[in-house]
Amino acid sequence: MNDLTVGDYLISRLQALGVRHVFGVPGDYVLSFYALLQSREMRIVNTCDEQGAGFAADAYARMRGLGVVCVTYCVGGLKVANTTAEAFAEKSPVVIISGSPGMKERDKNPLLHHKVRDFDTQLKIFEQITAASTVLADAQTAQKEIDRVLDAALRFKRPVYIEIPRDMVAAPCILHHRTADHRTGSDPDALQEALTEAVAMMNAARKPVILADVEVHRFGLQEMLLRLAERANIPIASTILGKSVVGEEHSLYLGVYEGAMGREEVRRYVEESDCVLLMGVFMTDVNLGIYTARLELGRAIYATSEKLTIRFHTYENVTLQDFLAGLVEAPLLRHEPGEFPHPEPAVEFTAQGTRNVTVRRLFQCLNAFLTRDMVVIADVGDALFGAADLLIRRHTEFLGPAYYTSMGFAVPAGIGAQLANPELRPLVLVGDGAFQMTGMELSTAVRYGLSPIVVVLNNRGYGTERQMQEGPYNDILNWNYHRLPEILGAGRGFLVETEEQLDQALISAERHTESFCILDVQMDPMDRSPALERLTERLSKRL
Amino acid sequence: MNDLTVGDYLISRLQALGVRHVFGVPGDYVLSFYALLQSREMRIVNTCDEQGAGFAADAYARMRGLGVVCVTYCVGGLKVANTTAEAFAEKSPVVIISGSPGMKERDKNPLLHHKVRDFDTQLKIFEQITAASTVLADAQTAQKEIDRVLDAALRFKRPVYIEIPRDMVAAPCILHHRTADHRTGSDPDALQEALTEAVAMMNAARKPVILADVEVHRFGLQEMLLRLAERANIPIASTILGKSVVGEEHSLYLGVYEGAMGREEVRRYVEESDCVLLMGVFMTDVNLGIYTARLELGRAIYATSEKLTIRFHTYENVTLQDFLAGLVEAPLLRHEPGEFPHPEPAVEFTAQGTRNVTVRRLFQCLNAFLTRDMVVIADVGDALFGAADLLIRRHTEFLGPAYYTSMGFAVPAGIGAQLANPELRPLVLVGDGAFQMTGMELSTAVRYGLSPIVVVLNNRGYGTERQMQEGPYNDILNWNYHRLPEILGAGRGFLVETEEQLDQALISAERHTESFCILDVQMDPMDRSPALERLTERLSKRL
Repeated sequence: MNDLTVGDYLISRLQALGVRHVFGVPGDYVLSFYALLQSREMRIVNTCDEQGAGFAADAYARMRGLGVVCVTYCVGGLKVANTTAEAFAEKSPVVIISGSPGMKERDKNPLLHHKVRDFDTQLKIFEQITAASTVLADAQTAQKEIDRVLDAALRFKRPVYIEIPRDMVAAPCILHHRTADHRTGSDPDALQEALTEAVAMMNAARKPVILADVEVHRFGLQEMLLRLAERANIPIASTILGKSVVGEEHSLYLGVYEGAMGREEVRRYVEESDCVLLMGVFMTDVNLGIYTARLELGRAIYATSEKLTIRFHTYENVTLQDFLAGLVEAPLLRHEPGEFPHPEPAVEFTAQGTRNVTVRRLFQCLNAFLTRDMVVIADVGDALFGAADLLIRRHTEFLGPAYYTSMGFAVPAGIGAQLANPELRPLVLVGDGAFQMTGMELSTAVRYGLSPIVVVLNNRGYGTERQMQEGPYNDILNWNYHRLPEILGAGRGFLVETEEQLDQALISAERHTESFCILDVQMDPMDRSPALERLTERLSKRL
Repeated sequence: MNDLTVGDYLISRLQALGVRHVFGVPGDYVLSFYALLQSREMRIVNTCDEQGAGFAADAYARMRGLGVVCVTYCVGGLKVANTTAEAFAEKSPVVIISGSPGMKERDKNPLLHHKVRDFDTQLKIFEQITAASTVLADAQTAQKEIDRVLDAALRFKRPVYIEIPRDMVAAPCILHHRTADHRTGSDPDALQEALTEAVAMMNAARKPVILADVEVHRFGLQEMLLRLAERANIPIASTILGKSVVGEEHSLYLGVYEGAMGREEVRRYVEESDCVLLMGVFMTDVNLGIYTARLELGRAIYATSEKLTIRFHTYENVTLQDFLAGLVEAPLLRHEPGEFPHPEPAVEFTAQGTRNVTVRRLFQCLNAFLTRDMVVIADVGDALFGAADLLIRRHTEFLGPAYYTSMGFAVPAGIGAQLANPELRPLVLVGDGAFQMTGMELSTAVRYGLSPIVVVLNNRGYGTERQMQEGPYNDILNWNYHRLPEILGAGRGFLVETEEQLDQALISAERHTESFCILDVQMDPMDRSPALERLTERLSKRL
């Protein structure tokens, strides 16, 4: 082990945690680390712009439990400030590795290229949007620092920042370092008391319901949650951010709950429940249908990774995992929920010839098209709101930035998702506005032999905003999206105006598995999904 | 004045400072401010992605003295963290205006969409990369805050941050506010002593020389500097970051000085001088040819906006403007510099038929093509290094991020530059790697009727890095750049492999003034300019 370097140690730890791909753009301060990644069989996925790498790594983290973006100092790092903020807000464990000027180059504070104000400017920025951060300035402490920071990523499911000065990549580590496991469990007394109280409440309830969200995905608790639901025979709803937390064909699955934004029967069922078990729920405005949700906390058991609240009191030091595991083993009564809502089944789509495609019909068609071997990735806007009603077959087959809502997520996320799980083909739903931000990352898909099906909801502008306040700034230039294969030298493009064309394009796309397919679906600028109609009505009151 | 609102005041101050365009992407937290901009005849330039808006506003600021980017909260703001850092590093006064959740929405710290950690997370980030920042949380203080922050932008020529909560846009201002002018002059005694010393040193010198940099541009001192040079008959060199600080056909102009990276005769002349007048120079690694420059401070008068240093002592409170103005009026002797170097004249380019285009020949051809009615914008890499030898006819007709060196600057900067001065046609020089980051902002050029000529130096990868360390991560996918007009529905594209084709394409581009033109100039992957050859030799020693 004598010749183990700081760079080696970092890579070996990431590999031990299941990471096989690193997303980024090279630059001189990180070039030696890139060479090391290459030699250690870590696959470098070079995106067009760092922003694409950030979104791709976020999706990879959501699917695989950890993602890595690796960039150069400031001009690379600051381009992923926004994607890192998204990962922070929506709890996605992304490791940002940034090269930087060597420690020996920093004497006398010279004006080295890419430096902004001080050498630690980038660090200070990332401290605001990560759970832990470090500069590997000293080989003596580098291993401990790497352990500490990666541990925080796994524990809090938040992004972390590791800066590696270029002269530290090959610096030899100290010997005999042992990777520590800092994971902390629950306080057993608090856990026991909480379980007793929760079980009594659930058993006394006439009509309990589970509302599950994103933390169930992040902590990999989907199967355990399902066991709980099945044992006690309790229906499950999910939030929009948590969508696909269970396979949506499951007999206990109700649908997406999102206050007045969602389907009325789901809203009524959840809000009329006398015991709501909120599992890993983020109380965000979007999840709560812009605060149209009426969840009475006096009837709620609210478990998150940060705290557990039953009615109006709180237990500290009870982890989400332990609490859920405890419930699964507890003496829960089996309920008889009687009749309850289910998602609309996916019915066969019969194209109505030359009828223009509407948002509603597009999603009906996609619902029929979806298979168990696809992962749906929705960008912000009606791509996301409309997708709430898609029937997702297996858990964690739906990704959407439904809280942070940063446009431009979906196309690069499709790249991260397919690399994270090559058995799933990405179905990317994206508005034309969001596509113009990051859609050219299809180039990255071509480069790495990926095959997303990209559906551009082309309404020639920012449709969500049109619903709130009309203005010329909501219109954008029309692109011939379906002709992008001619620019990129690969892929298949389809111009879709009618239902017939939509149907045919999807059939062709399904068969064309060698490369990406892009459907330019032309829609009326003022068309919208029912969910968007309800949402924008709410939002426009707050302008 | 009774119905003047906070939003009105901000817009009227910007207009008074010469701003006519605002670059950005709308979003719900900034939508009401967008509507106000629209109604106040401020032209909104909606780019594809916020990154493009950031670079465009930076270029606009460099040309016009102030630029504005206006975005929504976090998902918009954090996308311009990098472009703001560039503006900070290279002293460009860009105002970042960000909408944000209304003050009344913030009670109980709810999870509103786009929020990362706390409501002030974005503010804290921008504090790191701006000269001043404010949240307009109170109508009583908003005008003073706006004045303070805009004043800092003008004084320090750095970016500033103004956050406007959406419920403050229409909040009424207080009456009787008077816009204060905080500009501070020099300490007259210090100024007098410094001038006396500098004049004595210059008059005693046998072979004085002026080296001028970016601050001369930023403070609009180009004409004054020229008067100084002409009065004392002293030759002028510029740095690469400061290039075009004087019209380069001027008889006193030496060329670009950049240590061992630059032309040998310029290096020798500057370094052999017995009195170097450094005017607004940034001592950056790139400006100094990666520290191959040998400028003896014992013979230097070093004036910047922050301090004035003569030999090894420093004067505080002497502004660059006052010092330069004082020198122009001072009893300076007229020197007889004798023979000194001049830039290579632009000679007619005779295309050698089917010969492939090399980097060297490309720049010779562009040199012949350039006119007084063009502004050259160079992206990072050989686009920038090769451009050092282009002969720029008038001052401030060259823009390049030659210190911060963030890739992706040039195409959006071309948009900002042409809007800042519609009489100049942008000639945008960009590598294929940088083009893939932001090149689709050509869409914005189409939308606003702009006509840049974009030359893609297509060597199928990151050429600068190939020179430092070869690896597959330096190769990128080839795009058919010349076919982008088919995607965007406007513009003209040219595939250029030979000198003949280059010549013909430039002739056509010059004539086609209705829209953008793009030249896909195919180059050998290992070809490079002589400057890049010298630079990468230096850089690769530090990996």
